[in-house]
Amino acid sequence: MTRALYSLCGADERRFFSPHCWKAVMALAHKGLDFEEIPTTYARIRAIGGGVSSIVPVLDDNGRLIPDSFHIALYLEEAYPERPSLFNGEGGKALSRMVEGYSQMIIHPAIMRIALLDIHANLDEEDKAYFRQSREARLGKPLEVVAADSEAEKAAFGAKLEPLRHMLKFQPFIGGQTPLFADYIVFGALQWLRVSAGLAMLAADDPVMAWFERCLSLHQSRGRTVTAA
Amino acid sequence: MTRALYSLCGADERRFFSPHCWKAVMALAHKGLDFEEIPTTYARIRAIGGGVSSIVPVLDDNGRLIPDSFHIALYLEEAYPERPSLFNGEGGKALSRMVEGYSQMIIHPAIMRIALLDIHANLDEEDKAYFRQSREARLGKPLEVVAADSEAEKAAFGAKLEPLRHMLKFQPFIGGQTPLFADYIVFGALQWLRVSAGLAMLAADDPVMAWFERCLSLHQSRGRTVTAA
Repeated sequence: MTRALYSLCGADERRFFSPHCWKAVMALAHKGLDFEEIPTTYARIRAIGGGVSSIVPVLDDNGRLIPDSFHIALYLEEAYPERPSLFNGEGGKALSRMVEGYSQMIIHPAIMRIALLDIHANLDEEDKAYFRQSREARLGKPLEVVAADSEAEKAAFGAKLEPLRHMLKFQPFIGGQTPLFADYIVFGALQWLRVSAGLAMLAADDPVMAWFERCLSLHQSRGRTVTAA
Repeated sequence: MTRALYSLCGADERRFFSPHCWKAVMALAHKGLDFEEIPTTYARIRAIGGGVSSIVPVLDDNGRLIPDSFHIALYLEEAYPERPSLFNGEGGKALSRMVEGYSQMIIHPAIMRIALLDIHANLDEEDKAYFRQSREARLGKPLEVVAADSEAEKAAFGAKLEPLRHMLKFQPFIGGQTPLFADYIVFGALQWLRVSAGLAMLAADDPVMAWFERCLSLHQSRGRTVTAA
């Protein structure tokens, strides 16, 4: 019985930073499943399973290879139904796509603009070249030009978390009284920011920080195994 | 057996416009429950049930009075469990608060800035005075000053719906293959905009418009009983 998760790392192989990989790590931990987290640079993704995926995370569950964090969560829910649920019903599963939309379309672009140079700086030399070329093509300008606005982006970041603050007036987790995969979706985004650039732009008494700390403490404090930037 | 929903109206009593009241209307229709929708101006809210609430909607279910759209949905789910579910499980219930957070903290403020003068214009004289005074206090400036930016707000509005577009790549409703209360939460926001200022700022081929049209067609096209601005 071998289970492994291919997870994006920097030049320091212990610095797992990808939001999508953190979602999968937390989903596996939520299910109480043992797994080896395999440090993977961008350059090494294509070698996984002979080239099954252009993205990480990829879960290898006894030879069955599953790419994509949401698909991994769906797979784990189906393959291990007797273990704690990641969705708590079909409604929770469907609505998780909306939470993913909020996280990836509102929070991720802001983090990308805030932490671009920090993310770049953490990569090994080969990945640095790939990251610069692919992101500059996507953003349409040099990394340094995008990063010039990072202070303004940091100042505007807190307002993008208002949906979370609203939810936290009613319950301690997006999943309700206990966390679900939806929590790990947004946790992954803030963990990416924490590991890359730190969270100093958020106030210590922000309810979002209290929720994030609760998430960091889950599953034997798995999220704290990588230190903040 | 009498069931009534107190619902915000303009000077024209047939123009129900409140996002929160539309959520409750759609939740009642989803459950297949008959009800009378009682046109209620802001000034008349305090008279409901001798003053039980400062907000609408208020549901009167055989003398039991329930204010607040989310509480109404929770009540309907508990009181009528044999009818179609509004949440499809506890996970769906919990995550609906996150969708509410996205709708009310990201979409609502934008609609308020776009449609402020239109909303004001639709009210009767007594409500006009109340609306101006309360909103100017909340916004910190005259309605006309806020409205001066409405063209820029309209241009920026589409980007705020990116989370919906992401979700719609995977499924036709926030609730999955069929709508849930989470759909009605966001529907209520866009219906508020449609009735007050119209939706001309969204492209006809926007997937969000296709989803919104699907919602307008639900429950004997309940949403189409009020025409667009």
